[in-house]
Amino acid sequence: MPAKLPVGIIGLGRMGQVYARQLAAMPEVDIAIVSDVLADHAQTFAAEIEAKSWSTDYHDVLDHPDVRAVFIISPTNTHAQILVDGAASGKALFCEKPIALTVAETDRAIQAAEQHGAMVQAGFMRRFDPAYAAAKQQIEDGVIGTPTTFKAIGRDPFCPPLHFAPRAVSGGLILDMGIHDFDLARWLMNTEVHRVYTEGGTLAFPELNDVGDIDNAVVNLRFENGTIGNVEVSRNAVYGYDIRTEILGTEGGINIGQYRKTALVTLTRQGATHDLIPYLHDRFIPAYINQTRDFVTRVINNQPPAINLYDARASLIVGLAATRSFDEARPVELSEFPPLPNAG
Amino acid sequence: MPAKLPVGIIGLGRMGQVYARQLAAMPEVDIAIVSDVLADHAQTFAAEIEAKSWSTDYHDVLDHPDVRAVFIISPTNTHAQILVDGAASGKALFCEKPIALTVAETDRAIQAAEQHGAMVQAGFMRRFDPAYAAAKQQIEDGVIGTPTTFKAIGRDPFCPPLHFAPRAVSGGLILDMGIHDFDLARWLMNTEVHRVYTEGGTLAFPELNDVGDIDNAVVNLRFENGTIGNVEVSRNAVYGYDIRTEILGTEGGINIGQYRKTALVTLTRQGATHDLIPYLHDRFIPAYINQTRDFVTRVINNQPPAINLYDARASLIVGLAATRSFDEARPVELSEFPPLPNAG
Amino acid sequence: MPAKLPVGIIGLGRMGQVYARQLAAMPEVDIAIVSDVLADHAQTFAAEIEAKSWSTDYHDVLDHPDVRAVFIISPTNTHAQILVDGAASGKALFCEKPIALTVAETDRAIQAAEQHGAMVQAGFMRRFDPAYAAAKQQIEDGVIGTPTTFKAIGRDPFCPPLHFAPRAVSGGLILDMGIHDFDLARWLMNTEVHRVYTEGGTLAFPELNDVGDIDNAVVNLRFENGTIGNVEVSRNAVYGYDIRTEILGTEGGINIGQYRKTALVTLTRQGATHDLIPYLHDRFIPAYINQTRDFVTRVINNQPPAINLYDARASLIVGLAATRSFDEARPVELSEFPPLPNAG
Amino acid sequence: MPAKLPVGIIGLGRMGQVYARQLAAMPEVDIAIVSDVLADHAQTFAAEIEAKSWSTDYHDVLDHPDVRAVFIISPTNTHAQILVDGAASGKALFCEKPIALTVAETDRAIQAAEQHGAMVQAGFMRRFDPAYAAAKQQIEDGVIGTPTTFKAIGRDPFCPPLHFAPRAVSGGLILDMGIHDFDLARWLMNTEVHRVYTEGGTLAFPELNDVGDIDNAVVNLRFENGTIGNVEVSRNAVYGYDIRTEILGTEGGINIGQYRKTALVTLTRQGATHDLIPYLHDRFIPAYINQTRDFVTRVINNQPPAINLYDARASLIVGLAATRSFDEARPVELSEFPPLPNAG
Repeated sequence: MPAKLPVGIIGLGRMGQVYARQLAAMPEVDIAIVSDVLADHAQTFAAEIEAKSWSTDYHDVLDHPDVRAVFIISPTNTHAQILVDGAASGKALFCEKPIALTVAETDRAIQAAEQHGAMVQAGFMRRFDPAYAAAKQQIEDGVIGTPTTFKAIGRDPFCPPLHFAPRAVSGGLILDMGIHDFDLARWLMNTEVHRVYTEGGTLAFPELNDVGDIDNAVVNLRFENGTIGNVEVSRNAVYGYDIRTEILGTEGGINIGQYRKTALVTLTRQGATHDLIPYLHDRFIPAYINQTRDFVTRVINNQPPAINLYDARASLIVGLAATRSFDEARPVELSEFPPLPNAG
Repeated sequence: MPAKLPVGIIGLGRMGQVYARQLAAMPEVDIAIVSDVLADHAQTFAAEIEAKSWSTDYHDVLDHPDVRAVFIISPTNTHAQILVDGAASGKALFCEKPIALTVAETDRAIQAAEQHGAMVQAGFMRRFDPAYAAAKQQIEDGVIGTPTTFKAIGRDPFCPPLHFAPRAVSGGLILDMGIHDFDLARWLMNTEVHRVYTEGGTLAFPELNDVGDIDNAVVNLRFENGTIGNVEVSRNAVYGYDIRTEILGTEGGINIGQYRKTALVTLTRQGATHDLIPYLHDRFIPAYINQTRDFVTRVINNQPPAINLYDARASLIVGLAATRSFDEARPVELSEFPPLPNAG
Repeated sequence: MPAKLPVGIIGLGRMGQVYARQLAAMPEVDIAIVSDVLADHAQTFAAEIEAKSWSTDYHDVLDHPDVRAVFIISPTNTHAQILVDGAASGKALFCEKPIALTVAETDRAIQAAEQHGAMVQAGFMRRFDPAYAAAKQQIEDGVIGTPTTFKAIGRDPFCPPLHFAPRAVSGGLILDMGIHDFDLARWLMNTEVHRVYTEGGTLAFPELNDVGDIDNAVVNLRFENGTIGNVEVSRNAVYGYDIRTEILGTEGGINIGQYRKTALVTLTRQGATHDLIPYLHDRFIPAYINQTRDFVTRVINNQPPAINLYDARASLIVGLAATRSFDEARPVELSEFPPLPNAG
Repeated sequence: MPAKLPVGIIGLGRMGQVYARQLAAMPEVDIAIVSDVLADHAQTFAAEIEAKSWSTDYHDVLDHPDVRAVFIISPTNTHAQILVDGAASGKALFCEKPIALTVAETDRAIQAAEQHGAMVQAGFMRRFDPAYAAAKQQIEDGVIGTPTTFKAIGRDPFCPPLHFAPRAVSGGLILDMGIHDFDLARWLMNTEVHRVYTEGGTLAFPELNDVGDIDNAVVNLRFENGTIGNVEVSRNAVYGYDIRTEILGTEGGINIGQYRKTALVTLTRQGATHDLIPYLHDRFIPAYINQTRDFVTRVINNQPPAINLYDARASLIVGLAATRSFDEARPVELSEFPPLPNAG
């Protein structure tokens, strides 16, 4: 049996635990250390997944002599600093999206990574979902001709906790939810976004007004190559977690979406009824597993990241521009945002 | 057996023939006269549907002493004048959409109708499709709570003949195709459109550039009550005629769309395959029949129109505003357009 | 305009009216005469569809000098005699299924038709449904390789009126409902049935016991070429009219069925809900229209029938054998039934 | 953290590895020992899943002092003897279906288990699939009224290796594939099978004739309470692994089946295309995981098995009777088979 890849995990919140459990179940991985700011939680959880050690200080993960790959699943506002701190560690770094909520913070991470030649991958798991991966392949194979239009719907079944909603914490609705769609748009359309225009509002959860967030938005996109698109994000799909994406091309279209969780339909006088997808985990856990396994394989094989920090930066800017468009009720060109520091 | 309703039909082009054949098959209707500018065609077709008489002059229809209801299915650029001429006839008038391509022309028709108290119904057949009718009912019954978001996709499977595409003839892509969606938006969301913003382009059929039209657009909508929406129109759905509409609300959602023409799925090593809807007629002929029968019933019972000229005017203005937004790359508020003459 | 085909219609019950209205709407057809045993009904309905004359005696239809094609849509127990009477008329005869409930009666009709060389078509409308027609074509094109298994589900949403259920009237559940499936089985599998075995019972409507009928059955089929199948018939699909057929082959499968009437899905906390097909007419009216038009075209062009009396006889015998199998709880070979009289 | 349940695994073939990997990923389980007749394989695989020890002799698993639960996933022809040997061990035993291919062998296992009061669970994983579990719950809740008809389709996408097909090895098509459906039939209809009648044949893979197996069968069922059903099994669904089940009742129906693996539909001029389910593992791995976790929980909590040996015996007899029916071309009542030894 080949030697296992020793990994460290920073952050054991809800998503951190998901990543940690997936890593614990992978025979090619050894969890050397985990960290979380809550000592009790870190200790208990380390025991549960049989991690070799634990800490409350993420530097212990970055400095761990055995660790070759670090998963950064801590709160968004800590990502950039951890990336800066870890860039010189020689370890491969996986960072859950978004890298940061500002371009400046993101650029700090990029500069540190560039300086040290760090291998850093940004976490956009949808690219690893079998349906999205197949869509990319079919587009590249020319099945739908030249893409003309990108459409996305991203609807959550509930309002987030109010302390999470403010822009300073989550980036706000458009950035928080839309960033997945903006990443898919760039990837599947194979071009960058040129201009955005947003309509939005607080239409279902008036309490969001108090924390400066909204619950629904539609974002028109114009890409650099002239193609177009629209991304809808919503928090009031009470019927379930509803993620759909379409790419229309000159020779056909691709529709991605899942409408049923359980393979059962009930037929009564009231018609046909089936369930829907309750939560993100019911739809995308395989994508997370694929993403983690892909990253581990890349580290073992010394390959470059599947999604790099420039991708993360570009999708962030689409989200920021779409948010600015909503705030200012005008189309926003992405050229309003600073270019990559070293690109000037 | 009760007496039949004597009707006249103006215009025997492709859609005129559809209406005429439907009327010919209705036992409660008697086709007293038809008119078309092509004498041979009018004569032949009148014989085929057993119309009692025919003419090349639409005034003969408007002046026919027996006729109680006139169907105006002539080219769009003739609608307004025929409505003006017919307003004083005492006959009920059904006019296929759009009434006209300009607000001024539409207002000419409105003023004539108001002056003479004419019963005039505008043709927006989708409202009579069983799915859209059921959606309206469910929304009114509160099944999805308060609507927050309107989404529509309207895709044609081919580029229209180039002589039809210019704006002066068809109104251009956005008005020609989108006006159905704008009518549905106003009806289903039960509010008026306040602002639009369009991205679009000529992405599949470059020959459209020569006649000043485009083939794809996405139109963001903001309604007067703060709710939002997006309408996509496209000419390059080579896989079929693809009309879909969604209304998201605070308590659920409604999705309307038909994805299969024939009740057959073939299973092979290549996967599951089924056909799609080739043409408008495969999707909406029952809606046209329902619309015609509804209008006939209203005339017989002296009821007001289901969709009046003010509805047609409002949907026209959404289309014009969305087109202007594309031309000028800016959000356009509908208040830029003149109010109803008598509303001042 | 070419001369119209003058037709006569015998029987103006529920299905007779369906045929009559379809014929009345066909421009290539002229309804010369209709007959029904109820004079008032015949007169009123003749006026409604503008038939030129009416009678209470079906011989008036068979003897009408203008009529070239007769539609026999009267009660099943009258079919054979009308066919015998009509065989010498020189008119083409369309007879709704089943021809008769016994082999002897069917053979009387066959012998009369053979003697006079009459053109007689049996009404099995499903063959004219676009999905079944496409299935037949795909099978012939080899899309699914060699068929191995035929499966059918035929479920009605309600119990028939008790006076209709007895075998002497309807043939009983298996014959009444299954004959469509037995016809499809022979046609799509392109072989004859060799043996049947039935399980069945009165499981939902105990009142059927009083009239000697049952409400559910499953019929195993063995075809002459060794392939197999199963037909299920039921009266208690309270959720709707549920007709499904599958053909499995060595290279794939074909599934035919329609699961939604209206193009609308409602999404709520209770899941996704859509309607189903309430009645036969919601599923198969286009098939009836296609069948009628096909027959009219055959008569005009002097073509042989699409489905002849030998087909009707063969499907009848499958139904009788399946009923006998239920009665005697044993497999029944079709060789128990007499061969075609002239085939000896 | 509570102490882990120490388990042993007998048999590391394809399915044994599936179980072993699932157990290895469960934090509440400790794999104390595995056995396989192939020493190299046992050693390598034990290392891979970090089992504490390994053996080529299953008695070492049954005798292991720490082990509390044993998973018997060895070839079918070894199950009964292992169960007999293990019955006295005091360990809980999980045995993959079928227990044996004969009633006599099954009864040997039953008697040993009864004698020692052993906790033995038979592996019928479909009951643990979320769709089947939900179906059972809905039936118990009365959603579809009283069940009247059970329908099942079980189609494999390929012919098994010829050395596996003979009845002495696999039980033959009907028993090998149908036993899952017979178990579901008994469970969901909540009654025992009274009589079966089978039609079948070698219709796709003539090479099966050489080893005494067939590739297609339809089995009519009559249950003790008078309800009915049909089970189809096939080996030539080249389009994928196709498992469907329906229960029709007096107030509705339940349809279970999954028709798409990847959440993607491609739309082209050829129609809509999506993939299907390639293999058993794409459909039922969650059911296996649920089943394993359920059994582990039962052992920890000293609960009786979810599916006992009497269930396994009853489903075996249905399969044997259906096979005999095919062999002898006659209906077979299950009373032809011996009653439970102690039940006399």
